[in-house]
Amino acid sequence: MIQETEAAVELETAMSAAADAAPALVNSRPGDRATWLRAIADRLDGDAEALVAVAARESRLTEQRLRGELVRTTFQLRLFSRVVEDGGYLDAIVDHADADWPMGARPDLRRMLRPLGPAAVYAASNFPFAFSVAGGDTAAAIAAGAPVVVKAHSAHPELSRAVAVHLHEALAAAGAPRGAFALVEGREAGLALVLDPRLTVATFTGSLAGGRALFDLAASRPEPIPFYGELGSVNPVFVTGAAAAARGREIAAGFAASLTLGVGQFCTKPGVLFVPAGSSFADEVVEAVRGTSGGPMLTDAIRGGYFASLAPLAERDDVELLIGSPAEAQEPVPTIYGTDATTFLAHADELLEEHFGPAAVLVRYGSADELLAAARALPGQLTATVQGVDGDPVGPLLELLAGRAGRVLWNGWPTGVSVTYAQQHGGPYPATTAPHFTSVGTASIARFLRPVAYQDTPDVLLPPALQEANPWSVPRLVDGVRTPGQPA
Amino acid sequence: MIQETEAAVELETAMSAAADAAPALVNSRPGDRATWLRAIADRLDGDAEALVAVAARESRLTEQRLRGELVRTTFQLRLFSRVVEDGGYLDAIVDHADADWPMGARPDLRRMLRPLGPAAVYAASNFPFAFSVAGGDTAAAIAAGAPVVVKAHSAHPELSRAVAVHLHEALAAAGAPRGAFALVEGREAGLALVLDPRLTVATFTGSLAGGRALFDLAASRPEPIPFYGELGSVNPVFVTGAAAAARGREIAAGFAASLTLGVGQFCTKPGVLFVPAGSSFADEVVEAVRGTSGGPMLTDAIRGGYFASLAPLAERDDVELLIGSPAEAQEPVPTIYGTDATTFLAHADELLEEHFGPAAVLVRYGSADELLAAARALPGQLTATVQGVDGDPVGPLLELLAGRAGRVLWNGWPTGVSVTYAQQHGGPYPATTAPHFTSVGTASIARFLRPVAYQDTPDVLLPPALQEANPWSVPRLVDGVRTPGQPA
Repeated sequence: MIQETEAAVELETAMSAAADAAPALVNSRPGDRATWLRAIADRLDGDAEALVAVAARESRLTEQRLRGELVRTTFQLRLFSRVVEDGGYLDAIVDHADADWPMGARPDLRRMLRPLGPAAVYAASNFPFAFSVAGGDTAAAIAAGAPVVVKAHSAHPELSRAVAVHLHEALAAAGAPRGAFALVEGREAGLALVLDPRLTVATFTGSLAGGRALFDLAASRPEPIPFYGELGSVNPVFVTGAAAAARGREIAAGFAASLTLGVGQFCTKPGVLFVPAGSSFADEVVEAVRGTSGGPMLTDAIRGGYFASLAPLAERDDVELLIGSPAEAQEPVPTIYGTDATTFLAHADELLEEHFGPAAVLVRYGSADELLAAARALPGQLTATVQGVDGDPVGPLLELLAGRAGRVLWNGWPTGVSVTYAQQHGGPYPATTAPHFTSVGTASIARFLRPVAYQDTPDVLLPPALQEANPWSVPRLVDGVRTPGQPA
Repeated sequence: MIQETEAAVELETAMSAAADAAPALVNSRPGDRATWLRAIADRLDGDAEALVAVAARESRLTEQRLRGELVRTTFQLRLFSRVVEDGGYLDAIVDHADADWPMGARPDLRRMLRPLGPAAVYAASNFPFAFSVAGGDTAAAIAAGAPVVVKAHSAHPELSRAVAVHLHEALAAAGAPRGAFALVEGREAGLALVLDPRLTVATFTGSLAGGRALFDLAASRPEPIPFYGELGSVNPVFVTGAAAAARGREIAAGFAASLTLGVGQFCTKPGVLFVPAGSSFADEVVEAVRGTSGGPMLTDAIRGGYFASLAPLAERDDVELLIGSPAEAQEPVPTIYGTDATTFLAHADELLEEHFGPAAVLVRYGSADELLAAARALPGQLTATVQGVDGDPVGPLLELLAGRAGRVLWNGWPTGVSVTYAQQHGGPYPATTAPHFTSVGTASIARFLRPVAYQDTPDVLLPPALQEANPWSVPRLVDGVRTPGQPA
């Protein structure tokens, strides 16, 4: 599949080291992995100024934004270290033998999550820190105990290598097994990686086309593996009539800021805005967007892709350019197309195409029925937002959106994804290829684990988390009762 | 994809009713779903004699076995009703807004699991009750709140219809939405079902070839959906030298009983047995198997498939028929082929083919290294078993097996899968197509759910499980702390 190139050698080295490291990682102590995560965070923080400078040059993002992103990245590593130490992520369950179990005597059964094995992480272009070499997927894999091979994104090769050096050195100094982490580069290595027989799981953040291609490869393997792709989302925002009347200017300003944050290059950028027809709110949106500016995009290829995605919109005679321009420029300007709900409902597929950049479609709806019909037309989304007021009859709308999105927001904006316990960054296809999981937040660790049950196994042969005395004091479900870190 | 046949009409009716029922099911109260599950169990128990008689006629299994299987099936429905009432399965998490969150102020975020939507359940041939129309997958889908369309297995059509009538009547009498359950039949409907755009998830228990074909269809959809296939496993058993010496006859008898239970037609049948070379243990196994008998297989097609799978073994000159026969007969006799570890390691792929019936391969190993090498050669398994004695140095073996199997057993037999909290019936491919999940035990409910987070949403618009006062008293993680059903 891959020629004997430098890339092939690099990948073979990475995968064979990862496979060799897997047994030691499985049996590494959670406390040790917590130490590794903190060591990585400390090293990145210690070199923040230099890293941000490289990131700014390569990504064309502002230093301020990148500094914030690095704070998020190192916080994430430290939060995951606490989750690992807590042990609840292991989902440990103990069922003692029970001769009176109603379906027939049951044996002693003990179940916990265990690392899958070598993991591939495909880094994203738009978060040079937080969804890249030392980003959330890498942090989650290391937290779980899975060796990780990161495919660098070609948008920031120098930064990727610099962060990789920190990872290598921090892991080595903290005593992690060699092979716990590796970086590979290039399209050739990326395609061979997902087909490597030693690989057990892959995560991806990027475009629908690229993610679907890798998903198809993962599913085509003789032994298919889980593929966690975070692909595409237009993140609809629904503004009620009452909200537009009560605080139209504030909402318009919030939308314009979210639309243009990072030059619109976020997977959570609000790409379609449903506004009440017959109000002045659409004008307020246009005015607010007029007060914003674009900026340089991450790469020339991304800029080209953005303008190419606008071309079909520009050619339609049933949508109207409200502000901005689809004409290719060095720095795109924030751009809004407008249409009505009838047009939207007739052409939802085309009008819900993602534009990775500062563009959105504004849809004027005339009735609550039209609004609900529009919500029903949505494919899977990472987020869906309602801007409303207390007492708005939005229950049915929220219910529809919860059925289509991973995260439902009230009077907020989808950009700015907090790393917490309750975060859900996922959703039905095409938002992701695996709706059960999240790629942000502490629950993201589960993607690198699978359950294993032990039946009637002597205590001395059990993993510590399942031993009767619970030496690691992990929270467990014991005979159906939740216990906070006690012996069974 | 599907012609306007009776099957097409039946499928369209089922899927459109399921899609219509989904919103009501999402919002059904867990207590109501618990009532439905118990109503189904009560009706099946109330008609046990008649159902067992139909099942025995169609499946050729003994009435005793089928009575036990029905007990398991109705126990499972009732156990799941308790899990639903407990609410822990919702995995509810509450993070209050926190201005001092280290990565930057966090909003109020609340996350819980929510039903995916219409689910397909492909019933199995070999468990006419427990993995069929009212089996574990159906119980889990109803517990989760997902409408379920069961594809009946052609091995027991009359029983499938009789159980479906009970399900329909029990659900209707208990007040469940119409469309919560439907039965479809036939290969044509089965293929169209997995491609139906309204479908959100599918589960399958059956052969590697059939399951892989459906998995490939699910992955090929414009919008791929999770496909939980439980496909193939040879369930290796490793006997240590000390165990063979200490209780060889007992182990041989246990193996022979597990091998021939249900005429070997279990996904957990022990299909390969590793025994110490140079001992009399292999002879004890042959003697024990000599004391068992075969019986009629589930269907003529399954019998044909079983004997066809033995043909390549019979033709090899590096394996030896120890007892039994590969010659097609009305009722197969328990059959063991023997070989050595060198041959096994050179031809593991061929020698690890599953034989769905009372046949196994016995492999004589000469050293601990050969034993570990054999374990490393295993693909994904549902189970792996060690027969040992206290003090046996089997840590490395158990560790290898935990890396390949969903369940590791000590001095037990893999057949007879208890329905409990800690059960794990799954494993890496080809054991299943989704190693994160189980198809037996209370954790199986999660396959029909996905997480949704609500950001800054007013209490009155939140699902009850996420409201501040916790009106359903579900256990939750609140700001990182586990709480047993209290208000946040």
